[in-house]
Amino acid sequence: MTQVYNFSSGPAMLPADVLKLAQQELRDWHGLGTSVMEISHRGKAFIQVAEDAERDLRDLMHIPANYRVLFCHGGGRGQFAALPLNLLGDKTTADYVDGGYWAASAIKEAKKYLTPNVIDPKIIVDGKRALKPMRDWQLSDEAAFVHYCPNETIDGIAIDEMPDFGSDTVVAADFSSTILSSPVDVSRFGVIYAGAQKNIGPAGLTLVIVRDDLLGKASVACPSILDYTVLNDNDSMFNTPPTFAWYLAGLVFKWLKQNGGVAAIDKINQQKADLLYGTIDRSDFYRNDVATANRSRMNVPFQLADSRLDDLFLEASFAAGLHALKGHRAVGGMRASIYNAMPLAGVQALTDFMVDFERRHG
Amino acid sequence: MTQVYNFSSGPAMLPADVLKLAQQELRDWHGLGTSVMEISHRGKAFIQVAEDAERDLRDLMHIPANYRVLFCHGGGRGQFAALPLNLLGDKTTADYVDGGYWAASAIKEAKKYLTPNVIDPKIIVDGKRALKPMRDWQLSDEAAFVHYCPNETIDGIAIDEMPDFGSDTVVAADFSSTILSSPVDVSRFGVIYAGAQKNIGPAGLTLVIVRDDLLGKASVACPSILDYTVLNDNDSMFNTPPTFAWYLAGLVFKWLKQNGGVAAIDKINQQKADLLYGTIDRSDFYRNDVATANRSRMNVPFQLADSRLDDLFLEASFAAGLHALKGHRAVGGMRASIYNAMPLAGVQALTDFMVDFERRHG
Repeated sequence: MTQVYNFSSGPAMLPADVLKLAQQELRDWHGLGTSVMEISHRGKAFIQVAEDAERDLRDLMHIPANYRVLFCHGGGRGQFAALPLNLLGDKTTADYVDGGYWAASAIKEAKKYLTPNVIDPKIIVDGKRALKPMRDWQLSDEAAFVHYCPNETIDGIAIDEMPDFGSDTVVAADFSSTILSSPVDVSRFGVIYAGAQKNIGPAGLTLVIVRDDLLGKASVACPSILDYTVLNDNDSMFNTPPTFAWYLAGLVFKWLKQNGGVAAIDKINQQKADLLYGTIDRSDFYRNDVATANRSRMNVPFQLADSRLDDLFLEASFAAGLHALKGHRAVGGMRASIYNAMPLAGVQALTDFMVDFERRHG
Repeated sequence: MTQVYNFSSGPAMLPADVLKLAQQELRDWHGLGTSVMEISHRGKAFIQVAEDAERDLRDLMHIPANYRVLFCHGGGRGQFAALPLNLLGDKTTADYVDGGYWAASAIKEAKKYLTPNVIDPKIIVDGKRALKPMRDWQLSDEAAFVHYCPNETIDGIAIDEMPDFGSDTVVAADFSSTILSSPVDVSRFGVIYAGAQKNIGPAGLTLVIVRDDLLGKASVACPSILDYTVLNDNDSMFNTPPTFAWYLAGLVFKWLKQNGGVAAIDKINQQKADLLYGTIDRSDFYRNDVATANRSRMNVPFQLADSRLDDLFLEASFAAGLHALKGHRAVGGMRASIYNAMPLAGVQALTDFMVDFERRHG
């Protein structure tokens, strides 16, 4: 088959080595004569899978001992409800930073449970879209927590700054599209959560990393499957977890460790982003309108100067094995999602194609 | 590898043909050069998977046109919360039939949102565990709905009767362990739901079949990921669905259609159950304490007369390729879960083993 590079924003490309192993052992896992997806989550064999995955994630992210790791159902949008249901306590508000599509979606869901203090960080700097630095966020004294999304997949805009609001401020963040892509100081956060389908594994699994002093405060109206305390008390097996997704996540974590961990992938991610943004910036044929400091390294939206060429670009790139480059319907144009599993060679193939396409049609 | 028959209660055995196909196309699905789990749920290719799965399920179950089919996150336990959150309206109670472990778990979750009218149908008939027929259930006039679980996986007890409480009574039922195993008159129900990991596919997917006049009544406190109306309005893609599980469910539906559908598997399931219960009943060495009319055809718990032989039975059966026969910790002994994917040959192998084990140790 042709070498395909898949730039889907999620569900997204998985490491080729992980898929290869998963395929090899799909019907006979560890010599058991059955698939890993057919065995009980409560048996020794799967519990080993579960524990290995958590241990490897803890190693990769240097998760402190006072944080719990939960493997959940429900996706990032499930967490949009889970956050207020678990963290609000007797308060009635929380700070929500509206940096883009996903942050705004979290606000919409939170309004079921609280009156948000919405902070709009969006600014224009030298004609480019940017986000205010954290020191300019006006937090409320009454807030139970502050929520933000460090990487907006649709807008292609990111907040790389690490929060430092003091120990009284509980920071909750949606790391769905950046988790494991660069080092994170987990101790700065109360809750880190991430849908799996970008940097972790297949869709249907959600990771929650929660500081243990935040447990035990869930609203009585919180469905048990979203209750951090219930999930923690049951080792994320309050109900049957998405076992195959958990297993694949564990393979991805092992792959990442074998390849040097987060520090190593961080460097490659920087190379990939530099290569792609450099290609865009060197040309008047392509453009990206995000200020350099806020450019996402995971999701790179770009426009063709002549949008009449969009369809041709998409057809030709697909034919060249460069898949899923169509931008989100809300913004149009193109988008290349270049998560951990996308090798540098994939971005090289894309930029080669872009240069050639410009040469032919520019 | 040895032929293995896996009697796990869930996650459970999948049809061998389905796993074989999934393995073949795991890394190159439909010639696309990528895995089906790597593609966008919003692309044409996956939408075709999603639509095919729904159409095949509708065919298999003869689902009337005024019912919606939702593919959800959250498992059966998610639905324990979703039911009151979606169906209660301005009422404050619902009828809950406590026929076993799962029915009782649904009641516990429902108490977050309502005051249940609990109906205990458990009776003893001729020394055997049984359940009262539906005509003896005392429903409340004030109830928003009546909930029951037609098959209790741990207790091995079943309610095969179809409800007939009149058109004003909304019946909600947990079909996690029986869906597609025998014909069901969907029109008798308001909501049928099922975790996938027994008769449908891998864990992490939940099916909900809901009559459309029940939409639009969700509580404001219902997380959107559990809101039937939100899910229906977004074709079950309000958030990223568990795409690989959905794809596998679709393969299972196709497999079932190719093998004669629900009517054909119903006959095989009856043969399997007759063979296993017959072996138990013909012996004083094994016993099952459920009255014939309420015996589960999916989950067959049985005890050895001499429980000191339990460990030996489990070791020897595993060595013979008969896996996961240990009973649930709440009841001990043995349990054979014989869902649709378990072939008659598997039950034959088990009963042959049981007869031989009795001959050697009885």
